[in-house]
Amino acid sequence: MSQEDSFKYNRATVVGPGLLGASIAMGLKKKHMVKELWVWLRSEAKKDHCASSAWCDHATNNLQEAVVGSDLVILCTPVATITEQINQVSKWVNPQCIVTDIGSLKNTICSAAVEAFKDKESSFIGSHPMTGSEKSGLEYASSEILENKNCIVTPSSEDDPESFDKMKRMWEGLGMRVTKMSPTKHDQIVGCISHLPHVVASCLINTVERKNFDQLYLCGDGLRDTTRIAAGNPEMWQQIILGNKENLVEMMDDMVDQLNRLKDAIAKNDKQSVGDFLEKAKVVRDELDDKR
Amino acid sequence: MSQEDSFKYNRATVVGPGLLGASIAMGLKKKHMVKELWVWLRSEAKKDHCASSAWCDHATNNLQEAVVGSDLVILCTPVATITEQINQVSKWVNPQCIVTDIGSLKNTICSAAVEAFKDKESSFIGSHPMTGSEKSGLEYASSEILENKNCIVTPSSEDDPESFDKMKRMWEGLGMRVTKMSPTKHDQIVGCISHLPHVVASCLINTVERKNFDQLYLCGDGLRDTTRIAAGNPEMWQQIILGNKENLVEMMDDMVDQLNRLKDAIAKNDKQSVGDFLEKAKVVRDELDDKR
Repeated sequence: MSQEDSFKYNRATVVGPGLLGASIAMGLKKKHMVKELWVWLRSEAKKDHCASSAWCDHATNNLQEAVVGSDLVILCTPVATITEQINQVSKWVNPQCIVTDIGSLKNTICSAAVEAFKDKESSFIGSHPMTGSEKSGLEYASSEILENKNCIVTPSSEDDPESFDKMKRMWEGLGMRVTKMSPTKHDQIVGCISHLPHVVASCLINTVERKNFDQLYLCGDGLRDTTRIAAGNPEMWQQIILGNKENLVEMMDDMVDQLNRLKDAIAKNDKQSVGDFLEKAKVVRDELDDKR
Repeated sequence: MSQEDSFKYNRATVVGPGLLGASIAMGLKKKHMVKELWVWLRSEAKKDHCASSAWCDHATNNLQEAVVGSDLVILCTPVATITEQINQVSKWVNPQCIVTDIGSLKNTICSAAVEAFKDKESSFIGSHPMTGSEKSGLEYASSEILENKNCIVTPSSEDDPESFDKMKRMWEGLGMRVTKMSPTKHDQIVGCISHLPHVVASCLINTVERKNFDQLYLCGDGLRDTTRIAAGNPEMWQQIILGNKENLVEMMDDMVDQLNRLKDAIAKNDKQSVGDFLEKAKVVRDELDDKR
């Protein structure tokens, strides 16, 4: 067997090498999972910088050029852009190509993909690597941010177990733990464990700012950690939040209920209820660490 | 000048060597700010362990024995206990002794101290080092958790600038940045930058748990960081929260307002308002990092 046969993919294309896209590209090359790694990026200015990186074999601003002839295409643009690009990409890719994405919403994206790929030999299967940072952009990328993190893979049906297996092996090859879930279930779960924390952190920092402008700097790590994710890219998060609004509105109501329940107990000086509430929170949070 | 003259205090007593108390004790010895370091602790079982630590010269379960003859007493017990101990300690300490505490509430504690110390030559001045961890106990202690962190010092009046200066030098000697503030102002500010984040984190983890029992483990660092402080000691936090209830109830109402405002914008699919809300949160959060 020649050296070249050992590559799992001859050519992979990362569409949108931001923090996550570039981290995936780096991982695919580092783990020798692809022979060639191509990228598409919108910015002409960043093209040369990207092309000169060790992990990048070819960089282009032309999406068709970027995906034609690849065996694996990973869409890493913001969620609204992914939905647009799915249509285009489905027309251009080779019959044996497998396409995935890393968007934080799966219902909208996977529904668009079912439509776009319905008469195609190529296939689409959605993914959501549960990692990232409040920092965005290529300059913070590293294949290490994928290691030992969870990745949710969301087949739209059970009709194509082969594509699911391929995707599973790809993410596992990058060091991730894969969980299978329907796109609908994904949006409920991730609304709860990712989108809700984001809006809560944003509401908290905005509340604190209104009360206490000049002395925020006195805070310890508590406020800093609790609000870290609120520094995430507002445009990206606006798309995510509005794309999951039914789930999120319901959960924000639940959050308001919890706040009001605790507030009433505090106002009544109800030591038992306040203590029980905090105790329950501690038990759940400690369990989260155990499950890490 | 003999070696002994260079000690700032002949004997300091740390009352309650938990995470913060033991960290302070370690710092005072390491920086050669005290000649002898005594501790009082409730637990008979931990007494020997403590006494055998390099930073501890004497450990006792008898509070009177612990504080008589010391020049500096630092009360590091939970806030409800501090208020009780202030009365006892004020009767026993030497005339030149300065007493402080590290409680997260200053109004109740400093009012109790004004009463207890009013006819005494010894003096009390409240402190609140803005550091700690969701972990509690001596075994996690380290003088490093004090370095480059803020400490709020809360004189009850402007009549005793000398005691304030002594306290300021003590905390600065341990590597902290000191800010002066009235006890009332302290409780407002800290309610906002510490107590509110704690109740929000607790409400968030309890909300998430109700929606999504089995798949919490899939979360990224966002949920973990946002709720880290909810793992803090429930009994300690129940005392803190109920001791600052007027401020906290008002701020929890503000937090609910922010959540409802954002929720309404999401429900209406109001891209501009959602984007502006997230953008504002990002700007404030980024400023917090700049001020670090």
